[in-house]
Amino acid sequence: MAWNTNLRWRLPATCLLLEVAMVVLFGVFVRYQPDADARWTEDKLSRNVTSDLDNEFYYRYPSFQDVHVMIFVGFGFLMTFLQRYGYSSVGFNFLLAAFGIQWALLMQGWFHSFHQGYILIGVENLINADFCVGSVCVAFGAILGKVSPVQLLIMTLFQVTLFSVNEFILLSLLEVKDAGGSMTIHTFGAYFGLTVTWILYRPNLYQSKERESSVYYSDLFAMIGSLFLWMYWPSFNSAVSNHGDAQHRAAINTYCSLAACVLTSVALSSALHKKGKLDMVHIQNATLAGGVAVGTAAEMMLMPYGSLIVGFICGIISTLGFVYLTPFLESRLRIQDTCGIHNLHGIPGIIGGIVGAVTATYTSSEVYGQDGLVHTSGSKGFKPNWTSRMQGKFQAAGIFVSLAMALVGGLFVGLILKLPIWGQPSDENCFDDAVYWELPKEPKDGAVHPEDPTFKPSEP
Amino acid sequence: MAWNTNLRWRLPATCLLLEVAMVVLFGVFVRYQPDADARWTEDKLSRNVTSDLDNEFYYRYPSFQDVHVMIFVGFGFLMTFLQRYGYSSVGFNFLLAAFGIQWALLMQGWFHSFHQGYILIGVENLINADFCVGSVCVAFGAILGKVSPVQLLIMTLFQVTLFSVNEFILLSLLEVKDAGGSMTIHTFGAYFGLTVTWILYRPNLYQSKERESSVYYSDLFAMIGSLFLWMYWPSFNSAVSNHGDAQHRAAINTYCSLAACVLTSVALSSALHKKGKLDMVHIQNATLAGGVAVGTAAEMMLMPYGSLIVGFICGIISTLGFVYLTPFLESRLRIQDTCGIHNLHGIPGIIGGIVGAVTATYTSSEVYGQDGLVHTSGSKGFKPNWTSRMQGKFQAAGIFVSLAMALVGGLFVGLILKLPIWGQPSDENCFDDAVYWELPKEPKDGAVHPEDPTFKPSEP
Amino acid sequence: MAWNTNLRWRLPATCLLLEVAMVVLFGVFVRYQPDADARWTEDKLSRNVTSDLDNEFYYRYPSFQDVHVMIFVGFGFLMTFLQRYGYSSVGFNFLLAAFGIQWALLMQGWFHSFHQGYILIGVENLINADFCVGSVCVAFGAILGKVSPVQLLIMTLFQVTLFSVNEFILLSLLEVKDAGGSMTIHTFGAYFGLTVTWILYRPNLYQSKERESSVYYSDLFAMIGSLFLWMYWPSFNSAVSNHGDAQHRAAINTYCSLAACVLTSVALSSALHKKGKLDMVHIQNATLAGGVAVGTAAEMMLMPYGSLIVGFICGIISTLGFVYLTPFLESRLRIQDTCGIHNLHGIPGIIGGIVGAVTATYTSSEVYGQDGLVHTSGSKGFKPNWTSRMQGKFQAAGIFVSLAMALVGGLFVGLILKLPIWGQPSDENCFDDAVYWELPKEPKDGAVHPEDPTFKPSEP
Repeated sequence: MAWNTNLRWRLPATCLLLEVAMVVLFGVFVRYQPDADARWTEDKLSRNVTSDLDNEFYYRYPSFQDVHVMIFVGFGFLMTFLQRYGYSSVGFNFLLAAFGIQWALLMQGWFHSFHQGYILIGVENLINADFCVGSVCVAFGAILGKVSPVQLLIMTLFQVTLFSVNEFILLSLLEVKDAGGSMTIHTFGAYFGLTVTWILYRPNLYQSKERESSVYYSDLFAMIGSLFLWMYWPSFNSAVSNHGDAQHRAAINTYCSLAACVLTSVALSSALHKKGKLDMVHIQNATLAGGVAVGTAAEMMLMPYGSLIVGFICGIISTLGFVYLTPFLESRLRIQDTCGIHNLHGIPGIIGGIVGAVTATYTSSEVYGQDGLVHTSGSKGFKPNWTSRMQGKFQAAGIFVSLAMALVGGLFVGLILKLPIWGQPSDENCFDDAVYWELPKEPKDGAVHPEDPTFKPSEP
Repeated sequence: MAWNTNLRWRLPATCLLLEVAMVVLFGVFVRYQPDADARWTEDKLSRNVTSDLDNEFYYRYPSFQDVHVMIFVGFGFLMTFLQRYGYSSVGFNFLLAAFGIQWALLMQGWFHSFHQGYILIGVENLINADFCVGSVCVAFGAILGKVSPVQLLIMTLFQVTLFSVNEFILLSLLEVKDAGGSMTIHTFGAYFGLTVTWILYRPNLYQSKERESSVYYSDLFAMIGSLFLWMYWPSFNSAVSNHGDAQHRAAINTYCSLAACVLTSVALSSALHKKGKLDMVHIQNATLAGGVAVGTAAEMMLMPYGSLIVGFICGIISTLGFVYLTPFLESRLRIQDTCGIHNLHGIPGIIGGIVGAVTATYTSSEVYGQDGLVHTSGSKGFKPNWTSRMQGKFQAAGIFVSLAMALVGGLFVGLILKLPIWGQPSDENCFDDAVYWELPKEPKDGAVHPEDPTFKPSEP
Repeated sequence: MAWNTNLRWRLPATCLLLEVAMVVLFGVFVRYQPDADARWTEDKLSRNVTSDLDNEFYYRYPSFQDVHVMIFVGFGFLMTFLQRYGYSSVGFNFLLAAFGIQWALLMQGWFHSFHQGYILIGVENLINADFCVGSVCVAFGAILGKVSPVQLLIMTLFQVTLFSVNEFILLSLLEVKDAGGSMTIHTFGAYFGLTVTWILYRPNLYQSKERESSVYYSDLFAMIGSLFLWMYWPSFNSAVSNHGDAQHRAAINTYCSLAACVLTSVALSSALHKKGKLDMVHIQNATLAGGVAVGTAAEMMLMPYGSLIVGFICGIISTLGFVYLTPFLESRLRIQDTCGIHNLHGIPGIIGGIVGAVTATYTSSEVYGQDGLVHTSGSKGFKPNWTSRMQGKFQAAGIFVSLAMALVGGLFVGLILKLPIWGQPSDENCFDDAVYWELPKEPKDGAVHPEDPTFKPSEP
């Protein structure tokens, strides 16, 4: 089946329409939070703040920049592993994330930063917007190569909305802790994306199979993305934690978990190959599972060895998933998961939720100190009936809510994306930049990257 | 015309001479500022500073590192888009920037950090040196592929000097605000570079035309540069703003402007292609115009929606520029602008100056608070005759001064660079690493990157 | 000689065994330091700390992340310059560093952070662990392409151990200053690696010679690593310095030294080529020597011009080393140094030690102030018999201790690695990813990266 993939009017119209909406909504709703407002000079005096450093900016800005790199370079380049889809991986990720962060500022702002008719934004909002978009990047991984940029923008619009609702339920109604977003970002993003790709199932995708793999250099580009995700993950999991020890601890736990994860990923990758050779897919992806799985509990007193254990287990499970589960999902459940997000974000996200629930259950004033416990558990510490056991149960509930939101939302959004009007590529033109990009002419001798003879143009 | 491109004595002599001069001048003039001097321990006690954090280092260092990445990886890799000019793009940018930052520390130091016969440097000086070199990197974009490294060092020597004079006129004499350097860095750098390339016009450049384009992987390398520029631009525009709210606000505004710019760049790129396909040139470059154009006003109360509008407009104008203006400039005005810096830095820089002038004009104590206004406008708030209207006019004057300095300076420097003694490549050997680099022998089957049969060596 | 390179059981067993050991040892020994412990909330109150910013996290975290990038992306990509060894360079570096940081947390912890039976870790420990692994990455450069990942893990295990002992002798017994690790990291790492490669000498390595060189794109990938090392080196040398002026000064000195080093490296590279062309090897490596050589003295009052002189000299010596010394070492001393670490880390490391000793000798209260001197020299300032001259001698002793430890340790570890049981590649299969990696099938026309006809599989 060949759709019209000429996006000349659809893509510009979608972009401009969305951006005009952003301008109008920002004009009506968005202002600076006090720490970013010029009145801070006065504000400071009235609050007896003596040091300029007591501006939220200095607590969070370095972490923000690390997270920003993860979203744009990390996710963008991780997906360049496909041999002829590098422009789209980086470029579409860039597009959807740039739109997504604006929409997330609004959606999350209405839920969490709305004061007297205005959304007041500061650096923490920027981080949270990046986080929200992170879940869209995750979902993008499942449908990579099979959708048009128009579909991605539509998906981003809906997914950011649903993410914010889910996040509000978890953080504000259930009062769940999820600093690194194991549940809100990874579990939600992964199962949302998997549901969408299940709806968009392409029975004839084998026609593009020869491009659904890497070449030597594309795997090296993907390692750039993978490493920046791996290195900056401690910032990801600690970026919005409480000031001081919580940020500090979250960074340490994530560092430990990721280190352990590398060793077990390598071990399994080698053990599962008949000649003991390593597979780049595992090195690029499974090594990151430890960061996902420690997301919820990173700021808790998980202990360094606890983090190692989490990373240890996730490296194994994630690699096994790539080898056995992804083919099974495709052949039996008709879930075509291009990047294997189920192994990197899905299962590790759920594990992360469980680890968080268990760790929360064993929160005690012996470990945290009386003041620490109050500080950690937020206002709840003052509630006479709050117990760590209760918190553990709410944490567990958060996993199920995220899963339910992802499945229902993914179903709904998948059906919208299935409409044959968004310029999606035909089954034989998937995983190919040539559909949506003006590709450079290669040198005459055709050596560096020849025109692909298997590509069949489908534009009218 | 074939010049002698053997640089064996010219390049080493130039480098060594310049570096010896740096050592001598640093020896005579450069010392540490108090915050970086070992006497700070005493100094602190005498000033009743209790926290080590009250060292300028902690306010600025994270931003400095981001800016540093932009200059060396950002600009360096952005220019690797040419198919056979990656070594030169990254390598010459590395060379000129490494020299430029030393010379800028001196030049800017004499103008702004000179105390009792010594230039006292600290982290803010490092940032400003990187900024100054940024304007040279911009100008490099116009002449990319057509000059020798000796010419680049000569240009850097003069451009840094002129930049510092212009910066002094704007910041110290006109007391203009320009935290992100829309005028001092981008407008000045772009029109300087365009004037130089106009002087260096090569009527027979068509002989190298087959190399003046990208190949698949070179465009992916360029995306690394582009994304690091895009991601760290909030640090660029906030790095030297006042502590606290001003830095905070500058980061937010830049983040917003850049996000909007991506959507309109994509929209226009698709709309201007007959099949609606995207062009990598626009994605790599026009998406950054929003960061340029918000440079001056980023630290002002531009408001998030104001930033979105700036980004919105610049994405459109910049992409239009790449499609219509660059070919026009080359064919009619004999301005050969390799990277299209006119579209990324020239026009957006001027827009940035105008946005800054307008925003400054509407500065009021209602928006900034009385203390905030005094704080923002520096010492001028105490001047009885200072008005925001006056500030707006001075801001506008800054644009014209920068333009004038760029044109006159570029004319002068261009004429020097035109002398046929600097080892510049002949018209048929432009855009080719082989002129100045020992290239690796490719594997026997010649598959990965074959010797280019069109290259004609011109060395004697 | 063809060894069995099938690692199916050896690599997984090694990884899992080591990681299980890490989990157990972390469980027994590793806890959070007070700043990262939930009891900090109480702790803070009892110590009258009013600001959350007075958590070590905020002093060190941005530097930590920069160092982290240097270890994983910097070293990893710097070594991708080989035409068919990119997966291994990045991947094995990833593996050994991920294991090494865990083991270093323990080893360094026992020596420096051991309190009441527990190792208490915080962000400074994470940085020091990265530093320790940096010395392993250095040594890896000497044997790159000639060892199996199992050998690398074994080497890491021993080298981290020896590093920690050497570091303890220098920092705690000799009370030497070495903030940027010229001696502990670079000198030790380089001569350790050179000794190991001397023991592992392969007389028939010429059989793999055609792969021991770069291709066009592999050199561009290597520039990513090189630039991230160069840009973040100021963070490396300042990361664990004293708060305030020492960190500030270390960053400035490193910035200056590295800038000067680029110019002299370029000068020599051009001067030593008969047509004056630049060599990528020098641009990627010699430009970094200034960062190595300023490591020890960076936090001292070396003065900016002193830093320039250090960089100036090291750019020259390092480039000369690549041109004349490396071939000599290989042909005469049977030291096969794949990456030329002797020129980048060996000689500059020793120079760094000497510069540190000289600078320390001239430490005086005139330059540092009385309080500054006490602060700088640590507790020793209170010792009545401490003199700067004495400190200078101890610094010099540190160089010799590091060299001795490296040679003896390298001998010992080299002999272990020589055992023919670790799956090392045969002489004809060195520098080839295909031995240990499942390589992607290239497109049918074989254009991008063809199967290498020279590769001879040796698996049984």
